[in-house]
Amino acid sequence: MVTWNNMDTLVSYQKLSTMKNRVNVVEAMSGESGADRATRYTTPMAEGLAFNYGAKEVDDTILEQLAALAEEAQLVDKFEALYNGERVNTGENRMVLHHLARRQLGNDVVENGVNKRDFYAGVQAKAAEFANKVHAGEITNAAGETFTTVVQIGIGGSDLGPRALYLALENWAKVNNTLKMEAKFISNVDPDDAAAVLNSIDVSRALFIVVSKSGTTLETLTNEAFVKDALTKAGLDPSKHMLAVTSETSPLAQGDDYLDAFFMDDYIGGRFSSSSAVGGVVLSLAFGPEVFADILNGAAEEDKLATNKDLLQNPDMLDALIGVYERNVQGYLDTAVLPYSQALHRFPAHLQQLDMESNGKRVNRFGEPVNYQTGPVIFGEPGTNGQHSFYQLLHQGTDIVPLQFVGFKNSQIGTDVVIEGTTSQQKLCANVAAQIVAFACGKEDENSNKEFKGGRPSSIIIGDKLTPRSLGALLAHFENKIMFQGFVWNINSFDQEGVQLGKVLAKRVLAHDTDGALKVYSDLLDI
Amino acid sequence: MVTWNNMDTLVSYQKLSTMKNRVNVVEAMSGESGADRATRYTTPMAEGLAFNYGAKEVDDTILEQLAALAEEAQLVDKFEALYNGERVNTGENRMVLHHLARRQLGNDVVENGVNKRDFYAGVQAKAAEFANKVHAGEITNAAGETFTTVVQIGIGGSDLGPRALYLALENWAKVNNTLKMEAKFISNVDPDDAAAVLNSIDVSRALFIVVSKSGTTLETLTNEAFVKDALTKAGLDPSKHMLAVTSETSPLAQGDDYLDAFFMDDYIGGRFSSSSAVGGVVLSLAFGPEVFADILNGAAEEDKLATNKDLLQNPDMLDALIGVYERNVQGYLDTAVLPYSQALHRFPAHLQQLDMESNGKRVNRFGEPVNYQTGPVIFGEPGTNGQHSFYQLLHQGTDIVPLQFVGFKNSQIGTDVVIEGTTSQQKLCANVAAQIVAFACGKEDENSNKEFKGGRPSSIIIGDKLTPRSLGALLAHFENKIMFQGFVWNINSFDQEGVQLGKVLAKRVLAHDTDGALKVYSDLLDI
Repeated sequence: MVTWNNMDTLVSYQKLSTMKNRVNVVEAMSGESGADRATRYTTPMAEGLAFNYGAKEVDDTILEQLAALAEEAQLVDKFEALYNGERVNTGENRMVLHHLARRQLGNDVVENGVNKRDFYAGVQAKAAEFANKVHAGEITNAAGETFTTVVQIGIGGSDLGPRALYLALENWAKVNNTLKMEAKFISNVDPDDAAAVLNSIDVSRALFIVVSKSGTTLETLTNEAFVKDALTKAGLDPSKHMLAVTSETSPLAQGDDYLDAFFMDDYIGGRFSSSSAVGGVVLSLAFGPEVFADILNGAAEEDKLATNKDLLQNPDMLDALIGVYERNVQGYLDTAVLPYSQALHRFPAHLQQLDMESNGKRVNRFGEPVNYQTGPVIFGEPGTNGQHSFYQLLHQGTDIVPLQFVGFKNSQIGTDVVIEGTTSQQKLCANVAAQIVAFACGKEDENSNKEFKGGRPSSIIIGDKLTPRSLGALLAHFENKIMFQGFVWNINSFDQEGVQLGKVLAKRVLAHDTDGALKVYSDLLDI
Repeated sequence: MVTWNNMDTLVSYQKLSTMKNRVNVVEAMSGESGADRATRYTTPMAEGLAFNYGAKEVDDTILEQLAALAEEAQLVDKFEALYNGERVNTGENRMVLHHLARRQLGNDVVENGVNKRDFYAGVQAKAAEFANKVHAGEITNAAGETFTTVVQIGIGGSDLGPRALYLALENWAKVNNTLKMEAKFISNVDPDDAAAVLNSIDVSRALFIVVSKSGTTLETLTNEAFVKDALTKAGLDPSKHMLAVTSETSPLAQGDDYLDAFFMDDYIGGRFSSSSAVGGVVLSLAFGPEVFADILNGAAEEDKLATNKDLLQNPDMLDALIGVYERNVQGYLDTAVLPYSQALHRFPAHLQQLDMESNGKRVNRFGEPVNYQTGPVIFGEPGTNGQHSFYQLLHQGTDIVPLQFVGFKNSQIGTDVVIEGTTSQQKLCANVAAQIVAFACGKEDENSNKEFKGGRPSSIIIGDKLTPRSLGALLAHFENKIMFQGFVWNINSFDQEGVQLGKVLAKRVLAHDTDGALKVYSDLLDI
């Protein structure tokens, strides 16, 4: 039985909080000590990835204390409770089952006679069958032509995760001859978003997936109507071009508006839904069902590691706890995610939602305000691009921003050139190695403008190549990291009440039911 | 004559610093007070834009104190000194002349007999002439076919600004029949970046612009070689497909490797170079020279406003000083930039560089450490997308993040649908109006999980439509804002020594001249 307590009531945290500024990263990462830490402070992840935290502000003593915190906060027990179906999403009284969508770690979860594992597996199988028929030309447009493009219409979790995963594998799929259909995404209610996507494709050869769990998301329904309008104007029957991914009870699940519908339930939140039909339909259509299955398999392998009670063998929990130390003891607000992989250029945007929507909370799971900082602000761009941009502040600014690098030994496409004796891929990897040490150790200089204080902590996830399986492991790593942090902070990482007020006020603006400042801004914007 | 003093030595700042938490935004923005502030706290910008700061944590008293700070810090005088050619980039002993590239505000700037205004105008004219010849089919590939695609090869300032501007106007140009050539961008040394771009175009119909002021940027030279290799393999002569944008003394300016070369000088920094040949060549080719000229004209109009010593009539300086109050008195680290315009989806990435690379400094312009925080961390994504993502933390997280909204009354493409009585554009605008008030005023609730504390300050720039001219004004607004903040903080916003150490260490890695942690990470990454 797990108990839910605020972090600051835990003895292990109280002791941890006395360990501020214990590690001087400049000293720790210099010379033999640096080589030792870089070698020793690493934990294997799934699919050949490794989490290396040599350049973080921890030492064996802090790690022991983090292990004590993990134990006292019952982090693995809570994870077990979660995947075995305990309603840890207390605010909405819901289970949290995104792990089950990739593979069951524990017991069966049955509700109203439905085995949820079978439910998720069934939807995945249905998506696979549908995708195979489209690829085989058994499902075509009215003219009997194959569909060549798939367009996801969704926002937030129905957009950022699937989009990041698609972009991460698009070039890999081309090289491996498994890019079955090009995928596009429409999310913003800005009409220029939908118009631009529609202008860039042959709508007569396109399938559109409308993704909304509730079937009531304003942006998504508006964009659905936008697309239907365009299809009708092109002389096409929208119902022959559109699919729905929604809950069984949603308005979208009714009627004959869709070629087919794929169901989701209330137990997988939007930002965790890449593993459900939200990611499954579009990615199975784009890459084939086997590729999507591999993403899930990679994620499932990482999930298994997250059940390990030995902190140093649990990369997701370890990353989480180092983050808690940085946030609450060291007092850092931000974390930058810096993948040295152009294919991951939208992955930071997904992590930004995953983390900030999950843990950007000021009350605990019982609705009581907490007395400590919770989720960090997440931002990032791919390296080496960022090196020529915002890294200036990271190196020489007045505030310290912890860093999370990601790097792969091999490129996806494999085309490369040798310039001055090295390939582009070697230059890419050389740069991330160099940055870790530059941030950690800095450099003295008589000219203080050229001096680097160092002491900027970073970790790196190193992999062989970005593939469906390693991408799945990477995704699960961050999902689990964020989950563990939510457990430590004793908050509910699975609701998002903070998005509601804006919706309510926007409706009032559109109904011209405004006064005060809201009326002034409505007028200024000509609404 | 201007004098350069640290901010904390200024009497006006010392007084300002006593004004922490003076304004309760929840109260201020409620009821009649809110309507009054939303109406009154607005300053016209160029090209029909307006800067509205009703929801910021300021009142008339703070604004008076900010005006006193602007005067004591001689902000407008320093701007005048800058555009009249004073070497305000002290670290590199350089002038700062990006304003001159759009229009001279003051005196002629002459160096070694060269009138710099004429120099910049000459380069712009040369780019215009070249672009016109390409569009007219007078400059073609070896087979006599027109060029249809232009690819910019550059990184950092040679990439982010031009890319953001291109994407901001791509759909506008299509609608207005002035999209002359599609533009693509290669920046990352990750070989998958160049390979993916080359796979997506017909290289035989493409012009490539190599952009590097020094002619020594590792990523850019590598990607140039990558492209040349691909052209050669396709049986094409690279010198007939490549242009250079570089300084007159750079290696790229020599020899017969390029169809033509367009020069830049040392007085426009990379992140401010969109107004120079760095932006001018690619944007003139993509949209025609008149569109690029309109961007510069819009920027020049905004620059004029920045010369106004009346703080309340100088939107760039006002935005800057409110930011200083937030950063140094209120103690906020981050600022989120949130354009309600899909066309601006990469504009935050450009601002991230512009701001963080300019003002992420810990020593003043004389090389002495400062005792206050300098530049903020900048991040952002377009609304309404962000509302379904990281806004949760912004609304209900434990930390306050100041917000900068941007919104336009009209869309660019003009295609729209009416759903439930309103257009998508109206829904977009309703959402940004709603968010300002939601962030400011919050909402009480018995269920603390559904409670919004409010008190989250924001400003908004409102425009009629995103066009070349209003985009230019928007660009100049942020450039000038950041410049004024650098003046207040007494730092040099125009160098970037923080990017150097990583370059040096990366070279050592590639030369296998490593030890300690650097060697371990090099080995882990198989270099």
